[in-house]
Amino acid sequence: MDKKGGGNVYELEHTELSEKVYQLLKKMILNREFIGGQRLDLNDLSQKMNISRTPLKDAVNRLVQEGLMEVKPRSGTFVTNLKISDIEEVSEMRLMIEQWCVSHLTELRAQELVAALEDILEKFNRTLSVKPFPFESFLELDVRFHNEIVQAVDNQRMLEQYRSINSFLHAARIYFFQSYERSLSGHDEHMAFVQALKRYDLLEACGKLEEHIMNSKISMIARLQENGGAL
Amino acid sequence: MDKKGGGNVYELEHTELSEKVYQLLKKMILNREFIGGQRLDLNDLSQKMNISRTPLKDAVNRLVQEGLMEVKPRSGTFVTNLKISDIEEVSEMRLMIEQWCVSHLTELRAQELVAALEDILEKFNRTLSVKPFPFESFLELDVRFHNEIVQAVDNQRMLEQYRSINSFLHAARIYFFQSYERSLSGHDEHMAFVQALKRYDLLEACGKLEEHIMNSKISMIARLQENGGAL
Repeated sequence: MDKKGGGNVYELEHTELSEKVYQLLKKMILNREFIGGQRLDLNDLSQKMNISRTPLKDAVNRLVQEGLMEVKPRSGTFVTNLKISDIEEVSEMRLMIEQWCVSHLTELRAQELVAALEDILEKFNRTLSVKPFPFESFLELDVRFHNEIVQAVDNQRMLEQYRSINSFLHAARIYFFQSYERSLSGHDEHMAFVQALKRYDLLEACGKLEEHIMNSKISMIARLQENGGAL
Repeated sequence: MDKKGGGNVYELEHTELSEKVYQLLKKMILNREFIGGQRLDLNDLSQKMNISRTPLKDAVNRLVQEGLMEVKPRSGTFVTNLKISDIEEVSEMRLMIEQWCVSHLTELRAQELVAALEDILEKFNRTLSVKPFPFESFLELDVRFHNEIVQAVDNQRMLEQYRSINSFLHAARIYFFQSYERSLSGHDEHMAFVQALKRYDLLEACGKLEEHIMNSKISMIARLQENGGAL
Protein backbone atom coordinates (compact mmCIF):
# COMPACT_ATOMS: atom_id res chain seq x y z
CA MET A 1 0.00 0.00 0.00
CA ASP A 2 2.63 2.54 1.02
CA LYS A 3 4.60 4.06 -1.79
CA LYS A 4 7.97 3.26 -0.28
CA GLY A 5 6.76 0.28 1.73
CA GLY A 6 8.09 1.99 4.83
CA GLY A 7 4.86 1.68 6.79
CA ASN A 8 4.48 5.48 6.95
CA VAL A 9 0.74 6.21 7.23
CA TYR A 10 1.31 9.62 5.65
CA GLU A 11 2.32 8.10 2.33
CA LEU A 12 -0.53 7.03 0.09
CA GLU A 13 -0.98 5.51 -3.32
CA HIS A 14 -2.03 7.90 -6.05
CA THR A 15 -5.20 6.00 -6.99
CA GLU A 16 -8.27 7.65 -5.56
CA LEU A 17 -5.83 9.74 -3.68
CA SER A 18 -8.11 12.58 -2.72
CA GLU A 19 -10.67 10.10 -1.34
CA LYS A 20 -8.00 8.58 0.88
CA VAL A 21 -6.71 11.96 1.97
CA TYR A 22 -10.28 12.97 2.78
CA GLN A 23 -10.85 9.81 4.87
CA LEU A 24 -7.55 10.24 6.70
CA LEU A 25 -8.08 13.93 7.53
CA LYS A 26 -11.64 13.25 8.64
CA LYS A 27 -10.48 10.45 10.94
CA MET A 28 -7.79 12.71 12.39
CA ILE A 29 -10.35 15.41 13.13
CA LEU A 30 -12.88 13.02 14.67
CA ASN A 31 -10.12 11.37 16.73
CA ARG A 32 -9.04 14.83 17.90
CA GLU A 33 -5.56 14.54 16.40
CA PHE A 34 -6.45 17.90 14.92
CA ILE A 35 -8.39 20.05 17.33
CA GLY A 36 -11.09 22.69 16.82
CA GLY A 37 -9.69 26.07 15.87
CA GLN A 38 -6.33 24.65 14.80
CA ARG A 39 -4.84 26.21 11.66
CA LEU A 40 -3.78 23.67 9.05
CA ASP A 41 -0.61 24.38 7.10
CA LEU A 42 -1.46 22.87 3.70
CA ASN A 43 2.14 23.10 2.43
CA ASP A 44 3.37 21.27 5.48
CA LEU A 45 0.59 18.66 5.20
CA SER A 46 1.22 18.00 1.51
CA GLN A 47 4.92 17.43 2.31
CA LYS A 48 4.23 15.18 5.28
CA MET A 49 1.65 13.16 3.32
CA ASN A 50 3.96 13.16 0.30
CA ILE A 51 1.20 14.31 -2.07
CA SER A 52 0.67 17.27 -4.36
CA ARG A 53 -1.62 20.15 -3.45
CA THR A 54 -4.45 19.17 -5.82
CA PRO A 55 -5.75 16.03 -4.06
CA LEU A 56 -5.21 17.75 -0.71
CA LYS A 57 -7.26 20.75 -1.84
CA ASP A 58 -10.01 18.42 -3.08
CA ALA A 59 -10.13 16.65 0.27
CA VAL A 60 -10.16 19.95 2.17
CA ASN A 61 -13.00 21.25 -0.01
CA ARG A 62 -15.12 18.21 0.89
CA LEU A 63 -14.43 18.73 4.59
CA VAL A 64 -15.33 22.40 4.29
CA GLN A 65 -18.62 21.38 2.62
CA GLU A 66 -19.32 19.06 5.53
CA GLY A 67 -18.56 21.80 8.01
CA LEU A 68 -15.57 20.05 9.56
CA MET A 69 -13.12 22.64 8.22
CA GLU A 70 -13.45 26.27 7.32
CA VAL A 71 -11.51 28.57 5.07
CA LYS A 72 -11.11 32.10 6.41
CA PRO A 73 -10.17 34.66 3.77
CA ARG A 74 -6.63 35.97 4.17
CA SER A 75 -5.89 33.79 7.18
CA GLY A 76 -5.99 30.15 6.13
CA THR A 77 -7.67 26.78 6.61
CA PHE A 78 -8.88 25.80 10.06
CA VAL A 79 -10.50 22.87 11.80
CA THR A 80 -14.03 24.02 12.65
CA ASN A 81 -14.32 25.28 16.18
CA LEU A 82 -17.85 25.09 17.49
CA LYS A 83 -19.00 27.48 20.17
CA ILE A 84 -22.29 27.51 22.08
CA SER A 85 -23.38 30.64 20.22
CA ASP A 86 -22.83 28.84 16.88
CA ILE A 87 -25.14 26.04 17.93
CA GLU A 88 -27.75 28.52 19.16
CA GLU A 89 -27.67 30.60 15.97
CA VAL A 90 -27.73 27.64 13.65
CA SER A 91 -30.51 25.87 15.56
CA GLU A 92 -32.64 29.01 15.38
CA MET A 93 -32.18 29.27 11.62
CA ARG A 94 -32.90 25.61 11.15
CA LEU A 95 -36.12 25.91 13.14
CA MET A 96 -37.13 29.03 11.22
CA ILE A 97 -36.67 27.37 7.83
CA GLU A 98 -38.26 24.03 8.71
CA GLN A 99 -41.27 25.63 10.40
CA TRP A 100 -41.77 27.93 7.45
CA CYS A 101 -41.76 24.95 5.10
CA VAL A 102 -44.18 22.93 7.22
CA SER A 103 -46.60 25.81 7.71
CA HIS A 104 -46.74 26.37 3.93
CA LEU A 105 -47.55 22.77 2.94
CA THR A 106 -50.70 22.13 0.98
CA GLU A 107 -52.61 19.00 1.97
CA LEU A 108 -51.35 17.16 -1.12
CA ARG A 109 -47.74 18.17 -0.50
CA ALA A 110 -48.07 17.14 3.14
CA GLN A 111 -49.23 13.65 2.13
CA GLU A 112 -46.36 13.28 -0.36
CA LEU A 113 -43.95 14.37 2.37
CA VAL A 114 -45.44 11.88 4.84
CA ALA A 115 -44.85 9.05 2.35
CA ALA A 116 -41.20 10.05 1.88
CA LEU A 117 -40.64 10.45 5.62
CA GLU A 118 -42.28 7.13 6.55
CA ASP A 119 -39.86 5.42 4.20
CA ILE A 120 -36.93 7.05 6.04
CA LEU A 121 -38.46 6.24 9.45
CA GLU A 122 -38.50 2.56 8.53
CA LYS A 123 -34.79 2.70 7.68
CA PHE A 124 -34.18 4.54 10.97
CA ASN A 125 -35.93 1.75 12.80
CA ARG A 126 -33.74 -0.91 11.23
CA THR A 127 -30.60 1.09 12.09
CA LEU A 128 -31.60 1.26 15.75
CA SER A 129 -31.62 -2.53 16.06
CA VAL A 130 -28.12 -3.01 14.60
CA LYS A 131 -25.26 -3.64 17.02
CA PRO A 132 -22.90 -1.92 17.31
CA PHE A 133 -25.11 1.08 16.61
CA PRO A 134 -24.16 2.39 13.11
CA PHE A 135 -24.08 6.03 14.13
CA GLU A 136 -22.96 7.41 10.77
CA SER A 137 -25.82 5.71 8.90
CA PHE A 138 -28.29 7.03 11.43
CA LEU A 139 -26.88 10.53 10.99
CA GLU A 140 -27.15 10.30 7.22
CA LEU A 141 -30.82 9.32 7.49
CA ASP A 142 -31.37 12.22 9.87
CA VAL A 143 -29.96 14.67 7.31
CA ARG A 144 -32.19 13.13 4.61
CA PHE A 145 -35.26 13.35 6.86
CA HIS A 146 -34.85 17.07 7.44
CA ASN A 147 -33.83 17.83 3.84
CA GLU A 148 -37.11 16.26 2.69
CA ILE A 149 -39.05 18.77 4.78
CA VAL A 150 -37.30 21.71 3.15
CA GLN A 151 -37.48 20.22 -0.35
CA ALA A 152 -41.28 20.05 -0.01
CA VAL A 153 -41.33 23.83 -0.50
CA ASP A 154 -40.05 24.50 -3.97
CA ASN A 155 -37.41 27.15 -3.29
CA GLN A 156 -33.90 26.33 -4.54
CA ARG A 157 -32.16 29.17 -2.69
CA MET A 158 -33.81 28.22 0.58
CA LEU A 159 -32.73 24.62 0.15
CA GLU A 160 -29.13 25.70 -0.55
CA GLN A 161 -29.01 27.90 2.53
CA TYR A 162 -30.59 25.19 4.64
CA ARG A 163 -28.04 22.63 3.42
CA SER A 164 -25.12 24.88 4.27
CA ILE A 165 -26.55 25.36 7.78
CA ASN A 166 -27.14 21.66 8.13
CA SER A 167 -23.63 20.68 7.06
CA PHE A 168 -22.38 22.84 9.88
CA LEU A 169 -24.67 21.06 12.34
CA HIS A 170 -23.56 17.76 10.88
CA ALA A 171 -20.10 18.42 12.26
CA ALA A 172 -21.59 19.22 15.66
CA ARG A 173 -23.58 16.00 15.58
CA ILE A 174 -20.53 13.94 14.68
CA TYR A 175 -18.78 15.33 17.72
CA PHE A 176 -21.60 15.33 20.19
CA PHE A 177 -24.29 12.95 19.23
CA GLN A 178 -22.64 9.59 19.32
CA SER A 179 -25.29 8.58 21.80
CA TYR A 180 -27.73 5.74 21.30
CA GLU A 181 -30.16 7.26 23.82
CA ARG A 182 -30.37 10.65 22.11
CA SER A 183 -30.74 8.93 18.72
CA LEU A 184 -33.60 6.88 20.12
CA SER A 185 -35.48 9.90 21.51
CA GLY A 186 -34.74 11.80 18.28
CA HIS A 187 -36.41 8.97 16.40
CA ASP A 188 -39.49 9.20 18.66
CA GLU A 189 -39.68 12.95 18.02
CA HIS A 190 -39.49 12.35 14.26
CA MET A 191 -42.38 9.88 14.53
CA ALA A 192 -44.55 12.30 16.51
CA PHE A 193 -43.89 14.93 13.84
CA VAL A 194 -44.90 12.59 11.01
CA GLN A 195 -48.08 11.60 12.88
CA ALA A 196 -49.17 15.24 13.17
CA LEU A 197 -48.38 15.81 9.50
CA LYS A 198 -50.44 12.75 8.57
CA ARG A 199 -53.49 14.39 10.20
CA TYR A 200 -52.55 17.62 8.35
CA ASP A 201 -52.30 19.33 11.72
CA LEU A 202 -49.61 21.81 10.70
CA LEU A 203 -49.65 23.72 13.98
CA GLU A 204 -49.05 20.51 15.93
CA ALA A 205 -46.38 19.46 13.41
CA CYS A 206 -44.58 22.80 13.88
CA GLY A 207 -44.76 22.30 17.65
CA LYS A 208 -43.24 18.82 17.36
CA LEU A 209 -40.46 20.21 15.16
CA GLU A 210 -39.71 22.87 17.74
CA GLU A 211 -39.49 20.26 20.51
CA HIS A 212 -37.17 18.13 18.40
CA ILE A 213 -34.82 20.93 17.36
CA MET A 214 -34.75 22.40 20.88
CA ASN A 215 -33.93 18.98 22.38
CA SER A 216 -31.12 18.53 19.86
CA LYS A 217 -29.80 21.96 20.70
CA ILE A 218 -29.92 21.38 24.46
CA SER A 219 -28.19 18.05 24.08
CA MET A 220 -25.43 19.52 21.91
CA ILE A 221 -24.88 22.46 24.23
CA ALA A 222 -24.72 20.17 27.28
CA ARG A 223 -21.98 18.13 25.60
CA LEU A 224 -20.18 21.29 24.60
CA GLN A 225 -20.30 22.61 28.16
CA GLU A 226 -18.73 19.39 29.41
CA ASN A 227 -15.92 20.42 27.06
CA GLY A 228 -15.56 23.87 28.61
CA GLY A 229 -17.78 25.75 26.13
CA ALA A 230 -15.70 25.29 23.00
CA LEU A 231 -14.29 22.39 21.12
CA MET B 1 -8.19 63.88 -15.30
CA ASP B 2 -7.23 61.27 -17.90
CA LYS B 3 -3.79 59.78 -17.60
CA LYS B 4 -2.72 60.64 -21.13
CA GLY B 5 -5.07 63.58 -21.52
CA GLY B 6 -6.56 61.92 -24.55
CA GLY B 7 -10.17 62.19 -23.42
CA ASN B 8 -10.57 58.41 -23.32
CA VAL B 9 -13.21 57.63 -20.66
CA TYR B 10 -11.59 54.25 -20.10
CA GLU B 11 -8.41 55.79 -18.77
CA LEU B 12 -8.54 56.80 -15.17
CA GLU B 13 -6.25 58.37 -12.61
CA HIS B 14 -4.74 55.96 -10.15
CA THR B 15 -6.02 57.82 -7.08
CA GLU B 16 -9.11 56.15 -5.61
CA LEU B 17 -8.99 54.06 -8.71
CA SER B 18 -11.14 51.17 -7.56
CA GLU B 19 -13.86 53.62 -6.44
CA LYS B 20 -13.90 55.16 -9.91
CA VAL B 21 -13.88 51.77 -11.62
CA TYR B 22 -16.76 50.72 -9.37
CA GLN B 23 -18.79 53.84 -10.23
CA LEU B 24 -18.12 53.42 -13.94
CA LEU B 25 -19.04 49.73 -14.08
CA LYS B 26 -22.16 50.36 -12.02
CA LYS B 27 -23.24 53.14 -14.36
CA MET B 28 -22.66 50.89 -17.37
CA ILE B 29 -24.82 48.16 -15.84
CA LEU B 30 -27.62 50.53 -14.84
CA ASN B 31 -27.52 52.19 -18.29
CA ARG B 32 -27.70 48.74 -19.86
CA GLU B 33 -24.36 49.05 -21.62
CA PHE B 34 -23.73 45.68 -20.01
CA ILE B 35 -26.81 43.50 -20.03
CA GLY B 36 -28.07 40.87 -17.61
CA GLY B 37 -26.39 37.49 -18.09
CA GLN B 38 -23.47 38.95 -20.02
CA ARG B 39 -20.06 37.44 -19.21
CA LEU B 40 -17.40 39.99 -18.37
CA ASP B 41 -13.86 39.34 -19.61
CA LEU B 42 -11.77 40.87 -16.82
CA ASN B 43 -8.52 40.69 -18.81
CA ASP B 44 -10.13 42.51 -21.68
CA LEU B 45 -11.70 45.09 -19.34
CA SER B 46 -8.44 45.80 -17.49
CA GLN B 47 -6.75 46.40 -20.86
CA LYS B 48 -9.53 48.62 -22.20
CA MET B 49 -9.66 50.62 -18.97
CA ASN B 50 -5.87 50.72 -18.84
CA ILE B 51 -5.75 49.55 -15.22
CA SER B 52 -4.25 46.60 -13.39
CA ARG B 53 -6.36 43.67 -12.18
CA THR B 54 -6.31 44.65 -8.49
CA PRO B 55 -8.56 47.75 -8.57
CA LEU B 56 -10.77 46.00 -11.13
CA LYS B 57 -11.16 42.99 -8.83
CA ASP B 58 -11.96 45.30 -5.90
CA ALA B 59 -14.65 47.04 -7.93
CA VAL B 60 -16.11 43.72 -9.11
CA ASN B 61 -16.19 42.42 -5.53
CA ARG B 62 -18.25 45.43 -4.45
CA LEU B 63 -20.68 44.90 -7.32
CA VAL B 64 -20.96 41.21 -6.42
CA GLN B 65 -21.74 42.23 -2.84
CA GLU B 66 -24.48 44.52 -4.12
CA GLY B 67 -25.91 41.76 -6.27
CA LEU B 68 -25.25 43.53 -9.57
CA MET B 69 -22.64 40.95 -10.63
CA GLU B 70 -22.11 37.34 -9.80
CA VAL B 71 -19.09 35.05 -9.90
CA LYS B 72 -19.84 31.53 -11.04
CA PRO B 73 -17.14 29.00 -10.11
CA ARG B 74 -15.21 27.73 -13.13
CA SER B 75 -17.15 29.89 -15.61
CA GLY B 76 -16.45 33.52 -14.84
CA THR B 77 -17.91 36.87 -13.84
CA PHE B 78 -21.38 37.81 -15.07
CA VAL B 79 -23.80 40.71 -14.92
CA THR B 80 -26.67 39.53 -12.71
CA ASN B 81 -29.59 38.25 -14.70
CA LEU B 82 -32.84 38.41 -12.79
CA LYS B 83 -35.62 35.99 -13.57
CA ILE B 84 -39.14 35.88 -12.16
CA SER B 85 -38.31 32.75 -10.18
CA ASP B 86 -35.37 34.58 -8.55
CA ILE B 87 -37.65 37.34 -7.35
CA GLU B 88 -40.18 34.81 -6.07
CA GLU B 89 -37.59 32.76 -4.20
CA VAL B 90 -35.84 35.73 -2.71
CA SER B 91 -39.10 37.45 -1.67
CA GLU B 92 -40.20 34.28 0.10
CA MET B 93 -36.93 34.06 2.04
CA ARG B 94 -37.07 37.70 2.91
CA LEU B 95 -40.60 37.34 4.26
CA MET B 96 -39.64 34.21 6.20
CA ILE B 97 -36.70 35.91 7.93
CA GLU B 98 -38.44 39.22 8.66
CA GLN B 99 -41.59 37.56 10.00
CA TRP B 100 -39.52 35.26 12.19
CA CYS B 101 -37.71 38.27 13.64
CA VAL B 102 -40.90 40.24 14.27
CA SER B 103 -42.73 37.31 15.85
CA HIS B 104 -39.83 36.77 18.28
CA LEU B 105 -39.58 40.37 19.54
CA THR B 106 -39.97 40.99 23.25
CA GLU B 107 -41.98 44.09 24.17
CA LEU B 108 -38.80 45.96 25.06
CA ARG B 109 -37.06 45.02 21.82
CA ALA B 110 -40.17 46.00 19.86
CA GLN B 111 -40.13 49.49 21.42
CA GLU B 112 -36.42 49.93 20.66
CA LEU B 113 -37.07 48.86 17.10
CA VAL B 114 -39.99 51.30 16.77
CA ALA B 115 -37.70 54.15 17.86
CA ALA B 116 -35.08 53.22 15.24
CA LEU B 117 -37.69 52.79 12.50
CA GLU B 118 -39.47 56.07 13.26
CA ASP B 119 -36.17 57.83 12.80
CA ILE B 120 -35.81 56.24 9.36
CA LEU B 121 -39.46 57.00 8.47
CA GLU B 122 -38.82 60.67 9.11
CA LYS B 123 -35.88 60.61 6.69
CA PHE B 124 -38.07 58.73 4.18
CA ASN B 125 -40.63 61.49 4.46
CA ARG B 126 -38.10 64.19 3.69
CA THR B 127 -36.83 62.22 0.67
CA LEU B 128 -40.34 62.02 -0.77
CA SER B 129 -40.67 65.80 -0.92
CA VAL B 130 -37.39 66.34 -2.80
CA LYS B 131 -37.57 66.98 -6.54
CA PRO B 132 -36.31 65.30 -8.61
CA PHE B 133 -37.05 62.29 -6.42
CA PRO B 134 -33.67 61.02 -5.06
CA PHE B 135 -34.38 57.38 -5.76
CA GLU B 136 -31.01 56.04 -4.60
CA SER B 137 -31.28 57.73 -1.19
CA PHE B 138 -34.79 56.35 -0.79
CA LEU B 139 -33.53 52.87 -1.64
CA GLU B 140 -30.72 53.14 0.89
CA LEU B 141 -33.20 54.06 3.62
CA ASP B 142 -35.36 51.12 2.58
CA VAL B 143 -32.42 48.71 3.02
CA ARG B 144 -31.69 50.25 6.44
CA PHE B 145 -35.34 49.96 7.48
CA HIS B 146 -35.47 46.23 6.79
CA ASN B 147 -31.99 45.53 8.19
CA GLU B 148 -33.12 47.07 11.49
CA ILE B 149 -35.91 44.49 11.72
CA VAL B 150 -33.48 41.60 11.33
CA GLN B 151 -30.86 43.13 13.63
CA ALA B 152 -33.46 43.22 16.42
CA VAL B 153 -33.04 39.46 16.72
CA ASP B 154 -29.49 38.84 17.86
CA ASN B 155 -28.37 36.22 15.31
CA GLN B 156 -25.25 37.10 13.32
CA ARG B 157 -25.61 34.26 10.79
CA MET B 158 -29.22 35.17 10.11
CA LEU B 159 -28.27 38.80 9.52
CA GLU B 160 -25.51 37.78 7.10
CA GLN B 161 -27.83 35.55 5.10
CA TYR B 162 -30.51 38.22 5.09
CA ARG B 163 -28.03 40.81 3.85
CA SER B 164 -26.90 38.63 0.97
CA ILE B 165 -30.53 38.11 -0.04
CA ASN B 166 -31.23 41.80 0.27
CA SER B 167 -28.28 42.84 -1.85
CA PHE B 168 -29.68 40.67 -4.60
CA LEU B 169 -33.06 42.38 -4.28
CA HIS B 170 -31.29 45.72 -4.22
CA ALA B 171 -30.24 45.10 -7.81
CA ALA B 172 -33.82 44.24 -8.72
CA ARG B 173 -35.06 47.43 -7.10
CA ILE B 174 -32.50 49.56 -8.93
CA TYR B 175 -33.76 48.15 -12.21
CA PHE B 176 -37.45 48.07 -11.53
CA PHE B 177 -38.39 50.43 -8.80
CA GLN B 178 -37.52 53.83 -10.12
CA SER B 179 -41.12 54.75 -9.51
CA TYR B 180 -42.29 57.55 -7.26
CA GLU B 181 -45.73 55.97 -6.89
CA ARG B 182 -44.45 52.60 -5.69
CA SER B 183 -42.04 54.33 -3.31
CA LEU B 184 -44.95 56.31 -1.88
CA SER B 185 -47.12 53.25 -1.26
CA GLY B 186 -44.09 51.39 0.10
CA HIS B 187 -43.67 54.23 2.60
CA ASP B 188 -47.33 53.92 3.64
CA GLU B 189 -46.87 50.17 4.16
CA HIS B 190 -43.80 50.83 6.30
CA MET B 191 -45.82 53.25 8.44
CA ALA B 192 -48.66 50.74 8.93
CA PHE B 193 -46.10 48.16 10.03
CA VAL B 194 -44.52 50.52 12.57
CA GLN B 195 -47.97 51.44 13.94
CA ALA B 196 -48.80 47.77 14.61
CA LEU B 197 -45.39 47.26 16.22
CA LYS B 198 -45.99 50.29 18.43
CA ARG B 199 -49.11 48.59 19.83
CA TYR B 200 -47.01 45.39 20.22
CA ASP B 201 -49.49 43.65 17.95
CA LEU B 202 -46.99 41.23 16.41
CA LEU B 203 -49.58 39.29 14.43
CA GLU B 204 -50.82 42.48 12.78
CA ALA B 205 -47.22 43.61 12.22
CA CYS B 206 -46.43 40.29 10.50
CA GLY B 207 -49.52 40.74 8.32
CA LYS B 208 -48.44 44.26 7.33
CA LEU B 209 -44.96 42.93 6.48
CA GLU B 210 -46.49 40.26 4.28
CA GLU B 211 -48.60 42.85 2.43
CA HIS B 212 -45.54 45.04 1.90
CA ILE B 213 -43.24 42.29 0.66
CA MET B 214 -45.96 40.80 -1.57
CA ASN B 215 -46.70 44.21 -3.12
CA SER B 216 -43.01 44.74 -3.78
CA LYS B 217 -42.78 41.33 -5.37
CA ILE B 218 -45.83 41.86 -7.58
CA SER B 219 -44.53 45.24 -8.69
CA MET B 220 -41.10 43.82 -9.55
CA ILE B 221 -42.54 40.88 -11.42
CA ALA B 222 -44.88 43.14 -13.39
CA ARG B 223 -41.91 45.24 -14.53
CA LEU B 224 -39.94 42.12 -15.34
CA GLN B 225 -42.79 40.76 -17.44
CA GLU B 226 -42.87 43.99 -19.44
CA ASN B 227 -39.26 43.05 -20.20
CA GLY B 228 -40.17 39.58 -21.45
CA GLY B 229 -39.59 37.67 -18.20
CA ALA B 230 -35.85 38.18 -17.86
CA LEU B 231 -33.50 41.08 -17.81
